Amino acid sequence: MKEFKLNPDRFFDPETAVRKIARELYEETLSLPIISPHGHVDQRIFVDNKPFSNPTELFIIPDHYVFRMLYSHGIDHSELDIPKKDGSRKGIDPLKIWQIFSDNYYLFAGTPSGVWLDYEFCEVFGINEKLTSENAEKIYFQINEKLQSPEFLPRALFEKFNIALLSTTDSAADSLEYHKTIKESGWKGRIIPCFRPDGLTNLLDLNWSQNIKKLGEVNGKEITNYKSFLTSLEERRKFFKEMGATSTDHGVLTPYTHKLSDVESDKIFQKALKGNVTETDAALFTANMLMEMARMSSEDGLVMQIHAGSLRNYDNRIFDIYGLDKGIDIPVSTEYTNNLRELLNAFGSHKNFSMIIFTLDESNYSRELAPLAGLYPALKLGPSWWFHDSIEGMTRFRHSVTETAGFYNTVGFNDDTRAFVSIPARHDVARRVDANYLAGHVARHIISMEEARNLIYELTNGLVKKAYKL
Amino acid sequence: MKEFKLNPDRFFDPETAVRKIARELYEETLSLPIISPHGHVDQRIFVDNKPFSNPTELFIIPDHYVFRMLYSHGIDHSELDIPKKDGSRKGIDPLKIWQIFSDNYYLFAGTPSGVWLDYEFCEVFGINEKLTSENAEKIYFQINEKLQSPEFLPRALFEKFNIALLSTTDSAADSLEYHKTIKESGWKGRIIPCFRPDGLTNLLDLNWSQNIKKLGEVNGKEITNYKSFLTSLEERRKFFKEMGATSTDHGVLTPYTHKLSDVESDKIFQKALKGNVTETDAALFTANMLMEMARMSSEDGLVMQIHAGSLRNYDNRIFDIYGLDKGIDIPVSTEYTNNLRELLNAFGSHKNFSMIIFTLDESNYSRELAPLAGLYPALKLGPSWWFHDSIEGMTRFRHSVTETAGFYNTVGFNDDTRAFVSIPARHDVARRVDANYLAGHVARHIISMEEARNLIYELTNGLVKKAYKL
Amino acid sequence: MKEFKLNPDRFFDPETAVRKIARELYEETLSLPIISPHGHVDQRIFVDNKPFSNPTELFIIPDHYVFRMLYSHGIDHSELDIPKKDGSRKGIDPLKIWQIFSDNYYLFAGTPSGVWLDYEFCEVFGINEKLTSENAEKIYFQINEKLQSPEFLPRALFEKFNIALLSTTDSAADSLEYHKTIKESGWKGRIIPCFRPDGLTNLLDLNWSQNIKKLGEVNGKEITNYKSFLTSLEERRKFFKEMGATSTDHGVLTPYTHKLSDVESDKIFQKALKGNVTETDAALFTANMLMEMARMSSEDGLVMQIHAGSLRNYDNRIFDIYGLDKGIDIPVSTEYTNNLRELLNAFGSHKNFSMIIFTLDESNYSRELAPLAGLYPALKLGPSWWFHDSIEGMTRFRHSVTETAGFYNTVGFNDDTRAFVSIPARHDVARRVDANYLAGHVARHIISMEEARNLIYELTNGLVKKAYKL
Repeated sequence: MKEFKLNPDRFFDPETAVRKIARELYEETLSLPIISPHGHVDQRIFVDNKPFSNPTELFIIPDHYVFRMLYSHGIDHSELDIPKKDGSRKGIDPLKIWQIFSDNYYLFAGTPSGVWLDYEFCEVFGINEKLTSENAEKIYFQINEKLQSPEFLPRALFEKFNIALLSTTDSAADSLEYHKTIKESGWKGRIIPCFRPDGLTNLLDLNWSQNIKKLGEVNGKEITNYKSFLTSLEERRKFFKEMGATSTDHGVLTPYTHKLSDVESDKIFQKALKGNVTETDAALFTANMLMEMARMSSEDGLVMQIHAGSLRNYDNRIFDIYGLDKGIDIPVSTEYTNNLRELLNAFGSHKNFSMIIFTLDESNYSRELAPLAGLYPALKLGPSWWFHDSIEGMTRFRHSVTETAGFYNTVGFNDDTRAFVSIPARHDVARRVDANYLAGHVARHIISMEEARNLIYELTNGLVKKAYKL
Repeated sequence: MKEFKLNPDRFFDPETAVRKIARELYEETLSLPIISPHGHVDQRIFVDNKPFSNPTELFIIPDHYVFRMLYSHGIDHSELDIPKKDGSRKGIDPLKIWQIFSDNYYLFAGTPSGVWLDYEFCEVFGINEKLTSENAEKIYFQINEKLQSPEFLPRALFEKFNIALLSTTDSAADSLEYHKTIKESGWKGRIIPCFRPDGLTNLLDLNWSQNIKKLGEVNGKEITNYKSFLTSLEERRKFFKEMGATSTDHGVLTPYTHKLSDVESDKIFQKALKGNVTETDAALFTANMLMEMARMSSEDGLVMQIHAGSLRNYDNRIFDIYGLDKGIDIPVSTEYTNNLRELLNAFGSHKNFSMIIFTLDESNYSRELAPLAGLYPALKLGPSWWFHDSIEGMTRFRHSVTETAGFYNTVGFNDDTRAFVSIPARHDVARRVDANYLAGHVARHIISMEEARNLIYELTNGLVKKAYKL
Repeated sequence: MKEFKLNPDRFFDPETAVRKIARELYEETLSLPIISPHGHVDQRIFVDNKPFSNPTELFIIPDHYVFRMLYSHGIDHSELDIPKKDGSRKGIDPLKIWQIFSDNYYLFAGTPSGVWLDYEFCEVFGINEKLTSENAEKIYFQINEKLQSPEFLPRALFEKFNIALLSTTDSAADSLEYHKTIKESGWKGRIIPCFRPDGLTNLLDLNWSQNIKKLGEVNGKEITNYKSFLTSLEERRKFFKEMGATSTDHGVLTPYTHKLSDVESDKIFQKALKGNVTETDAALFTANMLMEMARMSSEDGLVMQIHAGSLRNYDNRIFDIYGLDKGIDIPVSTEYTNNLRELLNAFGSHKNFSMIIFTLDESNYSRELAPLAGLYPALKLGPSWWFHDSIEGMTRFRHSVTETAGFYNTVGFNDDTRAFVSIPARHDVARRVDANYLAGHVARHIISMEEARNLIYELTNGLVKKAYKL
C-alpha cells in the first residue's frame, strides 16, 4: 500500500519563486488561532462532550456535500440511511455505508470535499493511506478506535484545533439553552450564537405560525401585530447579544430591500397571521424586514450578514422525505445593486452599522459587490461561499474583488460548516490560497513582502476580528 | 521562407514541472481513438467517398467560424461565394477566394480557428509554412494535389484520424437514407445519427408546416393532432435507435420546461396547424415538448442533449440571403435553475434517463450547472460549447465546474463540427487542455499522478462512452 | 527609510520564460507615443498652463477612485474638502488632507489606484519612498516643490509623457472655447474634443431643459420640436468635427436601441418640453436617439462609443451634496445581444459606420460582446473599463474576448481618466499587461514571436489609430 501524505506545498503555484514566497507567508499563519465567526456546528456536541459514534456518523450522515455527490452517481439517501424529516432511520450497518462511500471516494477527486476529507483522514486521524474500496474497513476501524479516545472528544478537538472562537447559527426563537450550559460548564472554549430570524421574517416559511408562537412564548408576550413582532425581535436580539452574539444572519432568495410603512407592514402581518399571505406580500415583507434588521443593527451594533441567492429545497421529493439542508439548494442569478440601494442609502454610511454580504453568483464579485464595498463604510464582502468555498473559488474571489474593493473591505474566512472535524481543513485551505494569492502579487511586484506579511495576518485573523467585532 | 511546425508542447503551461506532467499525460491519449458523439459533418461525403473539390470548398465555404471573422473585417459573403439560401452561387474562382482568406489569415491569431487551421495545414496536409498572402497560391496547389490522392478521400481520412465513432445530427423527419447506404456499403466506419426534432417542437420554425407534413409522410400517417404528433415522434425515435442513434438533441433559446395537459397541448397544436400560434403559445409548447422528450428518453433510453441560449439568425439581411448556420447566431444570458426545475423534479433522478446540458453563458458554469450536475444522477454537463470550444474556454470550463460537479459528472469532449478535417485538430486541443489542467492539479498536489492518469483516460474516452451509451 | 523603486519586471508572470518574452515585448512599446482617444482631463489646464496648486489638489480632490476608497473606511468627503455641488469648499489645510490620505495609503495595496499612484510618485516625481503616515509631510513638500518648476507645468508634462493625442469629452452644447484657445495658442499638443450628447438625449437629465436651451443658443436657433432638435445635433456634430473630434460618446444605463417614427419621437419630445415625460417615454427616446446617432455617424463618420451599464448617482445623500462623478456610480447587469439588435441590423454592416462598445458587466465579454464583435464590421470592443481598468481586469478582458473576437476587433487602450498625471501610469500598466498576455501565448506556442511583435504594436498604437480614425 502506497503511503499517502499531504504535501507541505499543496495548493501553491508550482512556479518556484511564487511557491517559496507562498510557503513563507503560509508559515506565518501556523501560530494563529482559528476564528470561526459563522457556521453551523451543532453546539450540543460540546454540551455532552461524548465520543462521535463512528466514522459514518461523523463524515457522511451530516455532510450534504458528501451525500449529494454520491446521490449524483445514483446512490440514494436511503442507501446511506440519511435521517428522514421526522428523524427516523432504517438502522443500516454504518460499516456498510462506509463501504459505499469508500467505493465512490474517487468521485471527490478535485473537489473541496476531497481536499478536506484527505486532510481530516491524514492530519486529524493520522491515516496514511488514501481511502479505497480495499482499505475501507481497515480505515473505518482505525478512525473508530481514535474516536473512542479522550483526545478525540469534541472539546479536546476544539482545543487541539486551536479554535479561539466558534459561532453557531441559531433561530431567533431559540432558547440558547445549550449555549448557556456550555458557558456555565466552566469549559473555556468560546462558542457564541448568531441571531437568524429567517423563519420569522419569511412569511412563506412552512413553520411560520409555529415560529411566531414560539417567539411569543420565549419572550413571554403573545405576538398579535407587527409592532409586538418588532419589539419581540428587539428583545431577542438583546438576549442573543447578552449570550455573546455579535452578528445576525439573513438567508434570502433575493436581497431586495424596501421600507414599508408600519400600517402596510401590519396589514401584511395580519394576513400572515390568518394564513393567507401572497407571494408578493411575502417578498415585500422580507424586503421591509431587511430594512428593520439594518435599523436594529444600527442601534444594537450586531453585525448584519446577508446570504442571498440560494433557491432552497429545489427537489420536492427529497425535501418531502428528508427535509431541509439536504444538498438540494441551488444557486440562482442574483441582483445586488438595485436591490440593496434603499438599505445602503439609509444605513450604508451609518457609523454604528456593519453589514457583510455573501453571494453564490460569482458574476457579481467584480460587477456589483466590489464596487459597493469599495464605497460604503458599513459594507464588507464575505468570503467565497458554499460551492465557491474551494481552492479555485477562493482564488477567483480574490482576483475578482481585490482591485476594486481592496483587501481591507473583506472579512477573512468563514468555514460555514456543519462538519466540525473539517474546520481545520477548511481554514488550512483558505490560508494556503491567500498565501498563494499574496505570493503571486509579491512575485509580480504589485505589493512588497512587508505588505504581504501584514496582509496574511489581516486575512487570517485581523479582518475577521474587526468585521465581526470580536 | 521560415519553416513552420507545431511545437510538441503547445498549449501547455510554460512552468517546467507542469509542462513535463502535461506532456506525459497527453502522451497517454495518443493511442486512444477519437470518439465524436455530437457533430454536424455531412454524412454524404462518406456515401460518395469522392475527393474534396478544392481547399476553398474544404476550409472556407462550409466553416462559419472562418467567414464570420472575414465578414467582421469587411469581407462580404458574396466575395467568398458563400451559397445563397437557394443554393445558388456566383462561380468565383476558388483560388481568388483562397487568396482573400490568406491575405486575412493574420486575423485568426489567438483564435481557435487559427489553432485548428494551423494543425490541419501542418499535420493533415504536411504544409510547413505559415499561410500568408505570398505563399497562398503555392499552398493552395499543394493541398489541392493531396486532395486528389486516395489517402485524402473522406473514408481514408476517417480511418487515418482513428475515429471510432462519429455522430451526425439529423432532423426528426429525415429518412436517414445516407446512414442506411453507409451501413450497407460494408465500410466499417461507425457513423450514427442523432434525433433532432427542433423543426417540429418549435412551432415558430419557418418550415414547421412542411416539417409536420414530412413527418407524417415518412411515418406513413398524417398528423392531425397532438396525440398523433407524439406517436409519430415516438416512432421516429424508435427508427433512429434502430439506425444506431443513442441520443437526441434539442436547440432551444431558453431551457424552460413545463408540462401542459394533453388538452392544452392539443389546443396550441391545432392553432399551429391553422398557422396562428402566438409567441407565448410557442414558448409553452416547447417547454412542454422538452418534458415529453424527457419522458420518451426515460422510456427508450436515448440520451437527451439540450443546447440552450443561442439567439439564431440575429442578422436579418444575412439570414434572408444566406439562410441558416451562417455565423449569425449570438448567445444570450440563460437561466437554468428555475427553467429546468420541473424537468429535473420529474426525471432528474429517473434510473433510465440521461441528460446532457450545454451552455453559451459561462456565468452558469459555477452558479447553476455545476451545482445541478453535482446533485442529479440523470444530469451531466456537456463540454464548453461553440465560442467556448477553445483553449481558454475549455480551461475556464474545467476551472469553473470541477470543484462542484467533480470530473465524473462531465462527459468528455464534443467537437460539434461541420468541418470534417478539423476533427483531429479539435480533439488534439481538448486533450492538451485537459492534460494541462490535470498537470496543474498534480503539480499543486490536489490529485496524484495515478489519479491524473485515470482521469485523462476518462476525459478522453471513458466518460464519453458512458454518457452517450456507446 | 527603505528605498522604494518600481521593479522593471512588475506585473509580468513570474515564470522565467514568460517574463523574458514579456519584457522584450514591453520594451518595444517604450518608443511609442501615448494615444489617449477617450478621457476626461480638464482641458483648461492646458489653456492656463499654470502650476498645479499642490499635491492634495492634484492627487486627491479630483480623483473619485481615491476618495471613494477613503470613504469606504469612514472618511467623509467633508474631511477631504471635496467641493460641493455649488463649488463651495471649507478651506481645509491641504497638508492636513494629505496626511489623512497618507495615513490610509495602505488601503490601496493591490488596487489600480495604488499601482498608478506608486508610479506617479516614483516615476513622475522621483519620490523614492513608499508614502506612509511618517513621511507624508516630507513627500508633500517634495512634490509641491516640483509642481512649481517649469518641467511640471501641464504642457511640459504633456510633452514629457510623449502624448501624441488627448481627447476630452464635451457636452454637445459646449462652445469648445478652450479647445479653440489651445489650438490658436500655437502650442503643438494635439487635444481634440469628443461629442457627448447625454444631457440632451436623456430626457430625465435634471438639466435637460437648460441643456436644450443652451443647444439652441449655441446654434443660434431655438429648438421647438424633434426635427429642429435633430438638425441642431447634426450642426453640433459638424462643428465638433471641424474642431478635430473623431468620435461621439454615449453613456446609457441600458444599450437598448429602437427606432421610433418621427411622429412618435416628436410626441415624446413635446412632452419633455412641457416637463411631463414618463420613464417609459425617456427609455424609448434614448433608444431612438442611439439609432439616430448611429445614422448620423454613418453619414459624418464620427466613431460612436457606447458606455453602458453604470447606475449613476446611486447614493442620494452624496449626490445631493457633492453632485456628479463622485465615485457613487455602480455597475448593473447589462444585456447587449437583444438591445443592440436593431442598431446592428441597421448599421452594423454599414461601410461608413464604426461603433465601440464598453461594458462594466464582464459576464458579457465572452457571452455577447466577443461574438458580436467577431461578426459585425462596424463593431469593435473597447478595452476593459473603469473598475476593470486594472491588471487583473485587463487580463480577464484579453482572456475572455480574444478567442472569439480576435485581437483585431479590439481598439487598444483608453485611459478614460480625469487624473492627468496618471496617464503615463495607466498606459504603462496596459502595455505591461498586453506584453505579458502575448508572452503567455508565445510561451504556449499559440502565436509566434513575430506575431507577438506585430500585435504589441497594434495593441499599443496601431488599432487605436484605425478605430478612432486618428
